[in-house]
Amino acid sequence: MRAVDLIVKKRDGVELTPDEIRFFVQGFTRGDIPDYQVAAWAMAVLLRGMTAGETHALTLALADSGERLDLTGVVPVAVDKHSTGGVGDKTTLVVEPIVAACGVPVGKMSGRGLGFSGGTLDKMEAIPGFRVDLTTQQFLAQLRTVGLVLSGQTAELAPADGKLYALRDVTGTVPSIPLIASSVMSKKIASGAQAIVLDVKVGVGAFMPTVPEASKLARRMVEIGRLAGRNVVALISDMNQPLGHAVGNALEVREALDTLAGGGPPDFREHCLHVAAHMLVLAGHAPGLRAARASAEEALDGGTAREKFRALVAAQGGDPAVIDDPSRLPKAPVIEMVRCGKGGYLAEADARLIGMTAVALGAGRARKGDPIDPSVGIVVHAKVGDRLRADAPLYTLHASDPEKLRAARQQVAPAFKLTSRAVQPLPLFYRTVR
Amino acid sequence: MRAVDLIVKKRDGVELTPDEIRFFVQGFTRGDIPDYQVAAWAMAVLLRGMTAGETHALTLALADSGERLDLTGVVPVAVDKHSTGGVGDKTTLVVEPIVAACGVPVGKMSGRGLGFSGGTLDKMEAIPGFRVDLTTQQFLAQLRTVGLVLSGQTAELAPADGKLYALRDVTGTVPSIPLIASSVMSKKIASGAQAIVLDVKVGVGAFMPTVPEASKLARRMVEIGRLAGRNVVALISDMNQPLGHAVGNALEVREALDTLAGGGPPDFREHCLHVAAHMLVLAGHAPGLRAARASAEEALDGGTAREKFRALVAAQGGDPAVIDDPSRLPKAPVIEMVRCGKGGYLAEADARLIGMTAVALGAGRARKGDPIDPSVGIVVHAKVGDRLRADAPLYTLHASDPEKLRAARQQVAPAFKLTSRAVQPLPLFYRTVR
Repeated sequence: MRAVDLIVKKRDGVELTPDEIRFFVQGFTRGDIPDYQVAAWAMAVLLRGMTAGETHALTLALADSGERLDLTGVVPVAVDKHSTGGVGDKTTLVVEPIVAACGVPVGKMSGRGLGFSGGTLDKMEAIPGFRVDLTTQQFLAQLRTVGLVLSGQTAELAPADGKLYALRDVTGTVPSIPLIASSVMSKKIASGAQAIVLDVKVGVGAFMPTVPEASKLARRMVEIGRLAGRNVVALISDMNQPLGHAVGNALEVREALDTLAGGGPPDFREHCLHVAAHMLVLAGHAPGLRAARASAEEALDGGTAREKFRALVAAQGGDPAVIDDPSRLPKAPVIEMVRCGKGGYLAEADARLIGMTAVALGAGRARKGDPIDPSVGIVVHAKVGDRLRADAPLYTLHASDPEKLRAARQQVAPAFKLTSRAVQPLPLFYRTVR
Repeated sequence: MRAVDLIVKKRDGVELTPDEIRFFVQGFTRGDIPDYQVAAWAMAVLLRGMTAGETHALTLALADSGERLDLTGVVPVAVDKHSTGGVGDKTTLVVEPIVAACGVPVGKMSGRGLGFSGGTLDKMEAIPGFRVDLTTQQFLAQLRTVGLVLSGQTAELAPADGKLYALRDVTGTVPSIPLIASSVMSKKIASGAQAIVLDVKVGVGAFMPTVPEASKLARRMVEIGRLAGRNVVALISDMNQPLGHAVGNALEVREALDTLAGGGPPDFREHCLHVAAHMLVLAGHAPGLRAARASAEEALDGGTAREKFRALVAAQGGDPAVIDDPSRLPKAPVIEMVRCGKGGYLAEADARLIGMTAVALGAGRARKGDPIDPSVGIVVHAKVGDRLRADAPLYTLHASDPEKLRAARQQVAPAFKLTSRAVQPLPLFYRTVR
């Protein structure tokens, strides 16, 4: 078997066999197949597509490129969630404590933010002292004792996926449904998840711009899960405007803490309860969504989810005092609130532009490895459809210096559009794919 | 400008500007843009195509990546020919002496064979002592004094093209009309050609399998030439069966010598006269094809073309005695003639399979840099359409040992098909593209 022949096959739209895909991924992992051949292949995949069988084979080959975590015997059902990435998406910080508080242990490995999309690890690290670099042993021990873990990858899970993603990032081959689907699912399968709720974002602030495309991605991932014997549900959720109000690491932690205290933005609270309920159903904790939802609400409103979060922070070296006193979180030195200026209905709060402004402020990374500033970001005070007076607060910028604040104000201004005619609010979820 | 953005643009089917193409080629030439980005871009070009404007810009950027040869003042009109590559295509060895004998100096830089397609340099090197590694100064001096040169590239002409071709070869991105067209034309433009006859092969033994595809490639190259101020004619010629009889380096030199002596296979002789006539017209030597053809026939039949070839061989260190005594050429130790076995009409003599068998015998290279054996090859004694008796010679194998001969006989057997019903001969040329 020669790599070039497999590239030619894919280029000409011929289906690759599982053996051929495994050969290609193994060769790439070992370094026998050079980057330039993989780049040409990835472009051919992007433009020619992959069948369900090919995507499934690619997922397994990626998952098998490194260690596989086995959670059997540690938790009754290894349940996990994954978001395809968005702006202001601090869902994990609230959903996982809710599910854990309901008695379903959750051990989650998260990633860092890249581009306009934030990452759970960056958010959690805004809590002073919080460590995300657990070993596999520490991860398993904490999952047993606390029932909740939020860490980075404990070992080399699906290393071929990391290598492939880095290459796709610089070769224009990121937005391919089979490549995205196999990347997500390979990591979930390698990390031992048996039941997975996928939060597939759609809109200007997501990788998938339209509901049909997001649904296609969702169907592909659900299918891969089924072929791999996993129980998967995908929720297609809106990412045209940021989720909740806060965008930026410490700002988002504070919003998550408000939500865990029974407050928080209604849309974000609702989003979390819905995702948590699906996880509880998949984990077999509740017979259906209604009962699951009741458990989730109880965990949130009764404060047990908040206590789980406190235990999590303490277990991973963070300062638990932030839970009662969020003012202990890092604060930006320059803060400015901007008002609407004119009255009307909020027609647009462009999640991508707001996310990119947050990156420019220092909340995210333009490139992998860039340092980030946990304190900075943007709080958007209104949701699309809200009727606002001219003097109503529109957004607040949190910056490290006046220069950056000025630039951010300029950059973010076009993200907001007000109209005189009434505007429908955006839905939270568009559909569920099973 | 970032390379990845240009890949994305091409991936999405958006036209690149000349500046963007120049940036990409220059970055690649300098090594600033890595192979993996160029590979992804080449696959996007192959699958998305390029406009005439893009192909023209790519050609000029490739041509400008190194030195450009200027033949003004050395020859009245720098006329050249280029074949897209085929099996048994020893045309240059006869056409260039004819044109030179007509008083039109020809300085040609050729390439080596790769895959089932042979190369002029390998053929000429079958002549003992013949050197193809001339310096630019030697090239120009010989062009002035002898009026005929056949060498490898005298300098780094279009180095980006060489680099790009090597990458395309291993990334499944060879069969792209804009990439082939710009590769051919960039080298011709860099080598100073003002008038170019393109011999575009079509059929099983060519890169282009059908006349419409070959015509598309031809039109693209003629168009690039026009945009670059060159006078270009493309002849679409058959490559379903080998040209002439001989395939293999010394065997082809011998056939060229026979042809220069007024003999040779009729199809090959006709092919050479037709190409030569077009070159003479483009060079302004003759008012039209009829007069040009008469000059070419006179040069061939009068022996002046043969004398030009003799001068060429002598000038480049070869043994001129081979011209009168072709038995001085390298000879294979094991020779076997195979007869038809059954009578009938020759319906097929698969050029690709015959070419691949010649490579397996050692006449060509599977990979760049492989050594070759000048003596080996195949002589096909019949042309498609010929009526053959059961005991008529079909082909003769020239091998380095009995083992290779046996393998070649097995490999080449399916290339020949005989039928009981009459078969039309194949045309030599399908059309002319101006």
